[in-house]
Amino acid sequence: MIYPEEFEHLMESFQMLPGVGEKSAERYVYAVDSMENDKIEEFAKNLAQFKKNIKRCSVCGHITNKEICPICSSDARDSSTICVVEDSKSVFMFEKTGKFEGVYHVLGGLISPVDEVNPEDINISSLVQKRVNDNVKEVIIALNPSIEGETTSLYIQKLLEKTNVKVSRLSYGIPMGADIEYLDPLTIIRAIDDRKFLS
Amino acid sequence: MIYPEEFEHLMESFQMLPGVGEKSAERYVYAVDSMENDKIEEFAKNLAQFKKNIKRCSVCGHITNKEICPICSSDARDSSTICVVEDSKSVFMFEKTGKFEGVYHVLGGLISPVDEVNPEDINISSLVQKRVNDNVKEVIIALNPSIEGETTSLYIQKLLEKTNVKVSRLSYGIPMGADIEYLDPLTIIRAIDDRKFLS
Repeated sequence: MIYPEEFEHLMESFQMLPGVGEKSAERYVYAVDSMENDKIEEFAKNLAQFKKNIKRCSVCGHITNKEICPICSSDARDSSTICVVEDSKSVFMFEKTGKFEGVYHVLGGLISPVDEVNPEDINISSLVQKRVNDNVKEVIIALNPSIEGETTSLYIQKLLEKTNVKVSRLSYGIPMGADIEYLDPLTIIRAIDDRKFLS
Repeated sequence: MIYPEEFEHLMESFQMLPGVGEKSAERYVYAVDSMENDKIEEFAKNLAQFKKNIKRCSVCGHITNKEICPICSSDARDSSTICVVEDSKSVFMFEKTGKFEGVYHVLGGLISPVDEVNPEDINISSLVQKRVNDNVKEVIIALNPSIEGETTSLYIQKLLEKTNVKVSRLSYGIPMGADIEYLDPLTIIRAIDDRKFLS
């Protein structure tokens, strides 16, 4: 062991982060070494506070520091439109657009038989049993166009079949700024399928 | 502010690390979010312990958790050979080779008039005034072949001129595994200058 113990331990902690190998962890430790003492204290405090205060919204499952997240508890949001997303990352992405006025439902994963993720392992039942009632008009499914996303989408669709709620999904198609020349055939097929009539 | 406060604060801490922008910091926070609670606690503890216990060796200036680092306090090391390096990173690099048996002197920077780093801003005086005595036979200068490295090297050379100690520097030349075809001309010039006679 050529590094001091504290050095090694901090390296190990950094290596738990995604994409951080030995070299990056080492660089991060050197950076911590050259930080002001109060910045390091703040860093440690921020980790502890995160651990202590961050939880899931009891309504939608979104990451929050409150019992119910600001979106679910806001009067300005249209609670009759529920957007179903895989995780909190998606919620933040949608919020950044500033255009969606409904509420969310965070699944916390996707159904994946290969990875042994079953419907009961993700936050589906509370959507159907608790949230979708007569006041809810539409459920927008906003999941990745992957096998897992499509499987989960189909599953939710089936569960909601007997209710009066409308179920929709995001359109597939050409991403903004893309060049059709370089698109993959599947995206083009989907863009044709989801085409929008202009007249 | 679309993120919870604790989320933002932790993101800011991660963004103090080198090469970590907003996107990476966000990814790291999500990773922390999915860590076991005791792992996060450990992470915070490791930061605090690092801050509390890591200091500089009072002899050589190397990063350590002791008053005097294990290298300086080891009987197995040849204290008559001092290798002068820019920072602790270099010490760890040399130690990884397992071949150097002398001791180190960590400057903690290089002389750089442009960046207003003067000789008194780095750990030079203690080398000349305290460490180089009659028991020291050789000082090996192991600094980067940059303007700052060469300036610092020259400065140390001058200071040691009046002593009996031998001053050497690392050889410049072709790095192992390199293809001469792709080397820059300066490296080739240096490799000729530093050539080794075989007979």
